[in-house]
Amino acid sequence: MKFQVHSALEYQVQQPSTLILNIHALRSPTQTVLEETLELEPYLRAEEFSFGQNANRLLRLEVTEPLTFKITYKAIVDTIYQIIGLEKESGTTPIMQLDADVIPYLYPSRYAQSDKLQRLAYSKFGKYDKAFEKVCAITDWIYGNVEYLSGSTNSQTSAYDTVTERAGVCRDFAHLGIALCRALSIPARYFTAYAFKLNPPDFHACFEAYIGGNWIIFDATKLAPLNGLVKIANGRDAADAAVASIFGNVSCLSMQVGCDAIEENFTPLYYDINQQQGLSYS
Amino acid sequence: MKFQVHSALEYQVQQPSTLILNIHALRSPTQTVLEETLELEPYLRAEEFSFGQNANRLLRLEVTEPLTFKITYKAIVDTIYQIIGLEKESGTTPIMQLDADVIPYLYPSRYAQSDKLQRLAYSKFGKYDKAFEKVCAITDWIYGNVEYLSGSTNSQTSAYDTVTERAGVCRDFAHLGIALCRALSIPARYFTAYAFKLNPPDFHACFEAYIGGNWIIFDATKLAPLNGLVKIANGRDAADAAVASIFGNVSCLSMQVGCDAIEENFTPLYYDINQQQGLSYS
Amino acid sequence: MKFQVHSALEYQVQQPSTLILNIHALRSPTQTVLEETLELEPYLRAEEFSFGQNANRLLRLEVTEPLTFKITYKAIVDTIYQIIGLEKESGTTPIMQLDADVIPYLYPSRYAQSDKLQRLAYSKFGKYDKAFEKVCAITDWIYGNVEYLSGSTNSQTSAYDTVTERAGVCRDFAHLGIALCRALSIPARYFTAYAFKLNPPDFHACFEAYIGGNWIIFDATKLAPLNGLVKIANGRDAADAAVASIFGNVSCLSMQVGCDAIEENFTPLYYDINQQQGLSYS
Amino acid sequence: MKFQVHSALEYQVQQPSTLILNIHALRSPTQTVLEETLELEPYLRAEEFSFGQNANRLLRLEVTEPLTFKITYKAIVDTIYQIIGLEKESGTTPIMQLDADVIPYLYPSRYAQSDKLQRLAYSKFGKYDKAFEKVCAITDWIYGNVEYLSGSTNSQTSAYDTVTERAGVCRDFAHLGIALCRALSIPARYFTAYAFKLNPPDFHACFEAYIGGNWIIFDATKLAPLNGLVKIANGRDAADAAVASIFGNVSCLSMQVGCDAIEENFTPLYYDINQQQGLSYS
Repeated sequence: MKFQVHSALEYQVQQPSTLILNIHALRSPTQTVLEETLELEPYLRAEEFSFGQNANRLLRLEVTEPLTFKITYKAIVDTIYQIIGLEKESGTTPIMQLDADVIPYLYPSRYAQSDKLQRLAYSKFGKYDKAFEKVCAITDWIYGNVEYLSGSTNSQTSAYDTVTERAGVCRDFAHLGIALCRALSIPARYFTAYAFKLNPPDFHACFEAYIGGNWIIFDATKLAPLNGLVKIANGRDAADAAVASIFGNVSCLSMQVGCDAIEENFTPLYYDINQQQGLSYS
Repeated sequence: MKFQVHSALEYQVQQPSTLILNIHALRSPTQTVLEETLELEPYLRAEEFSFGQNANRLLRLEVTEPLTFKITYKAIVDTIYQIIGLEKESGTTPIMQLDADVIPYLYPSRYAQSDKLQRLAYSKFGKYDKAFEKVCAITDWIYGNVEYLSGSTNSQTSAYDTVTERAGVCRDFAHLGIALCRALSIPARYFTAYAFKLNPPDFHACFEAYIGGNWIIFDATKLAPLNGLVKIANGRDAADAAVASIFGNVSCLSMQVGCDAIEENFTPLYYDINQQQGLSYS
Repeated sequence: MKFQVHSALEYQVQQPSTLILNIHALRSPTQTVLEETLELEPYLRAEEFSFGQNANRLLRLEVTEPLTFKITYKAIVDTIYQIIGLEKESGTTPIMQLDADVIPYLYPSRYAQSDKLQRLAYSKFGKYDKAFEKVCAITDWIYGNVEYLSGSTNSQTSAYDTVTERAGVCRDFAHLGIALCRALSIPARYFTAYAFKLNPPDFHACFEAYIGGNWIIFDATKLAPLNGLVKIANGRDAADAAVASIFGNVSCLSMQVGCDAIEENFTPLYYDINQQQGLSYS
Repeated sequence: MKFQVHSALEYQVQQPSTLILNIHALRSPTQTVLEETLELEPYLRAEEFSFGQNANRLLRLEVTEPLTFKITYKAIVDTIYQIIGLEKESGTTPIMQLDADVIPYLYPSRYAQSDKLQRLAYSKFGKYDKAFEKVCAITDWIYGNVEYLSGSTNSQTSAYDTVTERAGVCRDFAHLGIALCRALSIPARYFTAYAFKLNPPDFHACFEAYIGGNWIIFDATKLAPLNGLVKIANGRDAADAAVASIFGNVSCLSMQVGCDAIEENFTPLYYDINQQQGLSYS
């Protein structure tokens, strides 16, 4: 499916600062960037870098004097997803059988303190047999119990806060989902994306859980169709995959984000609790 | 320098559980494992794995029925360290110049919430010009202000707790050091080791800061000579590099750990605040 | 109903310290202390004091040199409770109609941070019409979702921890009940007691909620009959009504506590969810 | 000294709500309210109440339908303060000698978790002999280490946050001062006031410590002269003495606050660290 995505961010830099921005669409075997442009106004020295093949594409910018700048990114991206039948999948993959590179996604992280949520996770979701059922139940529980409330949280808010305070934005919904999965020994990772007609328009965050050998996508906010995501980055949580990591004194003045389908036949997909099919981008 | 290290851990497994143990000495260009033996009593299926070359060596064990087992590790290890002159090093490496693979060590993590310590770090340590001075000052401040108190903390304790509660063990000292470095935009990572004649005998934890292109070792507990460390693992914090990650219901019944120099000419080294030389194992 | 209560506490004082103990049975119109003895061995200067009539009876002790001492309290106490029909009570008492001296029990306190639990409390318990139903539902929810686990918490543990970590002792169960009540604008206070045949034997803590003009007793641990309590103290939370507040370096070496009915006809009472009757000691 | 104080608060009530406002100047032997007016526009049923003689004067308002209202308070108040020589005062009052009604101000409270700050308080301020020196040092340390930053904190922020995050407003400065005093066994309480020419104009919060039998005033913000305070309320912390406690859905639309000296001879007083004189309003 082809999407046209764009973002425009305006920053005011008060003193010499460095920014690491993560707004480029990922390039991977299942996601092809057909066209893209990046504009910096005024021109600033910037370096694109990445942690390897198929990895998050970062942009590093140094601003040595106070100024206001605008960065605009536009791309046309073709995404492929798989529908994965999970009927036969009988439970959580034993840790002995996990690929080594999946294991770090079992560990607690800055915003997903799974070590503190173990009793709660087992008492609420331990009763489900299958891993897919468990993560669907987690997603539904977050959707039903946490209020989506713009401005209610900040960059320090973590799953440990959200599980009690019960309000947040997409980032907080994702962190809580990740923490609850890991507490049940299901590997889970953070996922940022451009999301089809997301309203209000913004960067989106959701999460993937590792089930039956695949990274299956989940979105506890239910604000975007699961097949309408253009992946930007993966990470353990927002510490790894923030849209902007700022070192210095910088304010964001404005942000526009958008994602539209180019083809006409886009049919939004959401999980149906009776179906046992997951959607995977990897 | 050659060291003989050993550890013996006894676990009681109450129900089917998986353990990931990280007790093997690391193999790397600067650390050669000359001999090693691992014994499991009774015999249990175990798999050694690693995240790549020169990476932490993990042991994955599955125990399917209640039992008590003992694991014993012994090795002779030859370590090489460098003394690095830092006189000319004028400050923190600009983020624009950091290698991409160092950048994750700038981000906050589960036990090192650097995002919450920024004002404190700047007000206490911002006045020092050079990065080495800053980290020496951090190390001294932790040593002077946090009491080493066995049993005062647990596996959930993080730098955010320790900075106020002012008591902990080596793990807590390391997490606080890491968090304060990152708050000042100095990359820092967790380091576990067998430590020469550590008293009380235990696995040791300290940290490395990235200064002038090298990972320089620091130990805020000052309990072991800096040249007496046999590295086990690196990680962002104890979430990545725990001696034991346990999934299930398992108790540790006993632990013996030891590290002795084989050669006779071992001269313990500690930082002298007037010297401007760091010690690096990488 | 007449009860025989006793407690014996042994403390080791390492350096000059002051203790404030709160182990005396309360004297009030509904609780008569028929006999009581207090022994300190060795003899120490101690002062009994109280914040007014019918108020907590405190014992203040100063120990000026290192020693080990034992304090033994025994009493025979006659308690009267009321069964209060709450069928007609249609809801939470409007704050406009609360007696002024009840209002402080609406506010958050050290261990009962009701301000952080508002969304959670409304989403779980807002649906019940009557205040008695609400508090019964809170009590049942805590009983069903928090594991009673000796040693799992300490003197710093608060309702904000327990609501997520889901384990604790009577004190933690009470704090969580109090915080959830206050979050719903129902005044609630902490209540310590000698409890009939409590097992394991210990001081007990539960809470009272202010419903229809009466302080109604609730015990989310369900470990003691509601009519088997000999009140020691009330307070906002354990900060006000701790069994022992210690200023200095003192360890508790041993503790024995007991409470038996003297009369033979003691019939234990617990709330039946269909009944609409509360039990009140005031 | 005579002051003219005023406050005007505008609230928007979205659904039936109750407010408890605490904006009246206190009446006490050392503070005489010479004239006062209170206006509610539109007229609303309101009840003034208090917890006893010389106690905080509260206003309870019920709003049964959505509306916007404004409350305006004006008063002329004559305050008397004492300068208390503390040269001879040799240390913290032993807990055995404290009046019973002062003891609750030793205990931790919602926003002043002194139990978590004991090691820090002893290590920083334990070296001072005299209680007045200790509290002056606490006040200076807060002033020097915490940045006054409007909007950096909210109604859930407590001393435990501020001691690490190092930013806040007058309320946060006061809570941290209170917590550190109590951690050293010095009774301390919260104090709200109209403050002479406070800039930016707002209600002020500071704290009193109990030294040598008197409640001595301290203001870690140093934003107002210590003799320019018209007391509104005392309490353990802001849970007891908030300007507004809101039960329901209410937003504050605007707030004006002011305090001017009527007499011309007003000479601002601040503590001079060499002087050993405290200022007390009680």
